[in-house]
Amino acid sequence: MKILLTNDDGLYAPGINCLFNVLKEKHTVYAVAPEREMSATGHAITLHKPLRVKEVELEAGMAQAVNGTPSDCVKLALEAILPSPPDLVISGINRGPNLGNDVFYSGTVSAAVEGYFLGFPALAVSLVIKNDFADFDFGARYINDLLSRHGQKIINSRYLLNINFPPGGQEEIRGTKITRLSKRNFSNIFDQRIDPRGEKYYWMTGSIEEKKEEGSDTLAIEEGFVSITPLCVDLTHHEQLKDLKNLDW
Amino acid sequence: MKILLTNDDGLYAPGINCLFNVLKEKHTVYAVAPEREMSATGHAITLHKPLRVKEVELEAGMAQAVNGTPSDCVKLALEAILPSPPDLVISGINRGPNLGNDVFYSGTVSAAVEGYFLGFPALAVSLVIKNDFADFDFGARYINDLLSRHGQKIINSRYLLNINFPPGGQEEIRGTKITRLSKRNFSNIFDQRIDPRGEKYYWMTGSIEEKKEEGSDTLAIEEGFVSITPLCVDLTHHEQLKDLKNLDW
Repeated sequence: MKILLTNDDGLYAPGINCLFNVLKEKHTVYAVAPEREMSATGHAITLHKPLRVKEVELEAGMAQAVNGTPSDCVKLALEAILPSPPDLVISGINRGPNLGNDVFYSGTVSAAVEGYFLGFPALAVSLVIKNDFADFDFGARYINDLLSRHGQKIINSRYLLNINFPPGGQEEIRGTKITRLSKRNFSNIFDQRIDPRGEKYYWMTGSIEEKKEEGSDTLAIEEGFVSITPLCVDLTHHEQLKDLKNLDW
Repeated sequence: MKILLTNDDGLYAPGINCLFNVLKEKHTVYAVAPEREMSATGHAITLHKPLRVKEVELEAGMAQAVNGTPSDCVKLALEAILPSPPDLVISGINRGPNLGNDVFYSGTVSAAVEGYFLGFPALAVSLVIKNDFADFDFGARYINDLLSRHGQKIINSRYLLNINFPPGGQEEIRGTKITRLSKRNFSNIFDQRIDPRGEKYYWMTGSIEEKKEEGSDTLAIEEGFVSITPLCVDLTHHEQLKDLKNLDW
């Protein structure tokens, strides 16, 4: 399989390197990722400055570092860099989960969505960190195994999958659950401070208000399962569409 | 009505100022917007630098300029700045349309989505520019009229609406259509150049591959109608979810 690999933690992050190392054994892997961390960039794209691509040597092989967002990397890779189209786009493994509404803010998920928009099946892969422990190697082997078992299905159906690993690594994983996105709301708290010049400024902080509904990605992760959610990219609210048509315009 | 007004073209852009001017006649308007243009920022949020808010005087009244993204503005306004919760969040009027897949890249739409996430009905409002002509005043009066006629319904049902105006202004508008998002794909072309130091760089350009399907927002705009699309924020692909559950995990 030919795989385009990207992420939003940057090309030197352990998650993407671990995945690159494991996947290259069976697959042709093209790693094209931001040169630095780009978390919480959402689906940002770079229109107003030139993009530069630098070839760098990683432990797993040669890769391309881009001075842009994850979405930029995928566009650039698919339309200007790769010698031929890949079979699959994989974004990750992200340091930290991307669950529920997070998918709107996540550079990891946006890169996968971008690949999907351009016609390819895509996986967004993220891992919960606990006590600074992240078993990226387990995650990478899980993805490798997933491709062996269901890779053809993923390609044929052109799935866009959001995959999250619970903390703890292989020993503690209880299995896999196919889930829907939870309604995960941030309660944003802005920490208001005064700078040395007497000017007010704010830090964005906040806690997550979890709704751990049955069948949701958040609950699966909480219970120690790998969570796989199929995503759609049509944001039309088809039910409300009918209601609205009945109003007088 | 109490309205939080924001945009992604920046607080000094004509679209938001025109809307502020018209809406303030009947409503209490709080304008909180980026201090500079933030187009194509997607749903980016600012976690790693402090946010600053500056009170500025616009023609329509006092407003707050934020050194952040449209989503930052909405979060900050709703959780730290506004004296009481608004009835409605409006983002726009954007200079240029936000149709089909654009909604993923659009700061204008993201600001409305952010308001929706935080519990409020929201409108994203955008206007097609043609030959540098933009009738923001028509757009503003349309929104004002929309609120008079259907404001209570929008609030009660907590709608999230993506509204686009065709070019041409009042004389050429043929009416309003309730639409679904089109599958609008960018064909990204990267213009590869060499800088004075001999280094390669790329500009992102590209054309839009329109699929003007019946009932779509793109077609409505093409035909001279105002397009209103109700949006949902659950990206779960519920049909594929059933298929995937049948695989062996």
